Amino acid sequence: MQLEFSIISKYFDIKKTKVFKGIGDDAALFTKDKKYYWAISTDTLNEKTHFLPHTSPFNLGWKSLAVNISDINAMGGNAKFALLSISLPDIKESWIKEFSKGFFSCAKKYGVELIGGDTTKGPLSINVCILGDVERKNVLLRSNAKPQDDVWVTGELGLAALGLAALENKVMISPYLKKKAIKALEIPKIYPSKIKKIAKLSNAAIDISDGLTADLYHILKSSEVGADIYLDDLPMNLWIKKNGYYDYGLTGGDDYQLILTAPKKNRLKINKLNALPSIKLTRIGVIKKGRKLNIIDSNGKLYNLKIKGFVHFES
Amino acid sequence: MQLEFSIISKYFDIKKTKVFKGIGDDAALFTKDKKYYWAISTDTLNEKTHFLPHTSPFNLGWKSLAVNISDINAMGGNAKFALLSISLPDIKESWIKEFSKGFFSCAKKYGVELIGGDTTKGPLSINVCILGDVERKNVLLRSNAKPQDDVWVTGELGLAALGLAALENKVMISPYLKKKAIKALEIPKIYPSKIKKIAKLSNAAIDISDGLTADLYHILKSSEVGADIYLDDLPMNLWIKKNGYYDYGLTGGDDYQLILTAPKKNRLKINKLNALPSIKLTRIGVIKKGRKLNIIDSNGKLYNLKIKGFVHFES
Repeated sequence: MQLEFSIISKYFDIKKTKVFKGIGDDAALFTKDKKYYWAISTDTLNEKTHFLPHTSPFNLGWKSLAVNISDINAMGGNAKFALLSISLPDIKESWIKEFSKGFFSCAKKYGVELIGGDTTKGPLSINVCILGDVERKNVLLRSNAKPQDDVWVTGELGLAALGLAALENKVMISPYLKKKAIKALEIPKIYPSKIKKIAKLSNAAIDISDGLTADLYHILKSSEVGADIYLDDLPMNLWIKKNGYYDYGLTGGDDYQLILTAPKKNRLKINKLNALPSIKLTRIGVIKKGRKLNIIDSNGKLYNLKIKGFVHFES
Repeated sequence: MQLEFSIISKYFDIKKTKVFKGIGDDAALFTKDKKYYWAISTDTLNEKTHFLPHTSPFNLGWKSLAVNISDINAMGGNAKFALLSISLPDIKESWIKEFSKGFFSCAKKYGVELIGGDTTKGPLSINVCILGDVERKNVLLRSNAKPQDDVWVTGELGLAALGLAALENKVMISPYLKKKAIKALEIPKIYPSKIKKIAKLSNAAIDISDGLTADLYHILKSSEVGADIYLDDLPMNLWIKKNGYYDYGLTGGDDYQLILTAPKKNRLKINKLNALPSIKLTRIGVIKKGRKLNIIDSNGKLYNLKIKGFVHFES
């Protein structure tokens, strides 16, 4: 959920810098050695903007690291080190204990080491800076999507948005689905152990923080291409599809699934990755020449988004 | 201005990690190449905690980067890259414009490149993650102070605290001194271009964010030593000394001057650095065996601090 990009980018044009071109991507890249780049990125979660008050501190600790690991994965790399900056209005030992449990559980699971940080007084806010490495030959830039590439996504879309809607009592769903959706929101599924295999077969990637269309649009803009996306092919939960909440899957934020573009010739190999445990890759469309993003419904007609996602497309 | 360390460090014990021992220091170190380490650090500035509402956005932009550069300098290194995360309650273009001017003026002056970041909605908060490099042979660890080392500080102490007191109308000072003190608070003086020369001659260092005694204490604790500091030798503004506000210099935060410990044999060489433009190094005491920090007044008696600085010494 980001502020209007046009004003920010007007004054913070970091594309002019001399560092390698990952800048403005999910992470910035700079030389590690002949084989690898370092990838560095940062993400902030603010109470009320990115999470509701009274969110489980364990889940928040987990998520604050997971969404940053996701940024490194979206470059084709693996996270190694993290710095954690927490602003807290006061010290509640039980909160800190649970938060740290969540953070370190995630760190242990994905092999990330906490190497520094800052703890300050202020409204609740969590910032993580993450550092990882990417094999030079596997770098996934937003700017590298090619016409005729297949467009793929991992996991299921819209579940996190459904979870948020359920927490805000905007939808009535079964306790089972509610639990699943809130889990998707608070403990996003990420794929560090598979990213190397995925990256080898792909051209471009981004992780979905602001919604499928908004984040896909970043790829299209950077790569100067367009895309046709097939609504029926989107991996959305049955309840979402049945009840016509397509916009959860198209514009809902916080899924942290990966959008990938990959050459058509790799289609079979990517499908085979679905045999790996706990990953699902779904082909949802194709990269085209031109600059348009078309969402095509089951009748072959253009689907009009009700809302446009969290960001302004024109930025 | 940090929260109580004991609770934080209880749950975030990062000293167990496998990365090089800079962890818990001003910056964490990890291998760059045979000659250099990378040094990485992060600092957050929150409105009301670290700066007053209505602080000049230009100055805030400058300071948010400068205090981070200072952390890399305190390791003996030079800052190269920065990531900037801003949380803003709303978009005020004039504010962003001035903030970015301040940030980039500082970046340009000290040769730092902005390579990434995050902009989010939330209470005003600025977090910078900084990355620099340090020659292995010049690393200044907090844990490396040796008995008989001289203790040095750069610049003047207590001016930033005086500036804050003036802004809060707690002291009445001349407009000239007020301007100077507020400048010390908002545009702290740092020494990136001299750090290599300083580091070669020193054993340990820290920058003063929480006050001379609190930050010196970090060195003493990490190095398992004590120190005698001579009150009369502290480089404090004449007004501060005349009016007996010694505690501004001893415990006032935000000076961002460097505390260094250096072998006695380097005393002459360090004094010669005072010939360099815009740096002043003052010898203020000596590292001793034992674990006590003694502040000694002009009568040779122990000086009792009125307040103990921003952190708990017992942590």
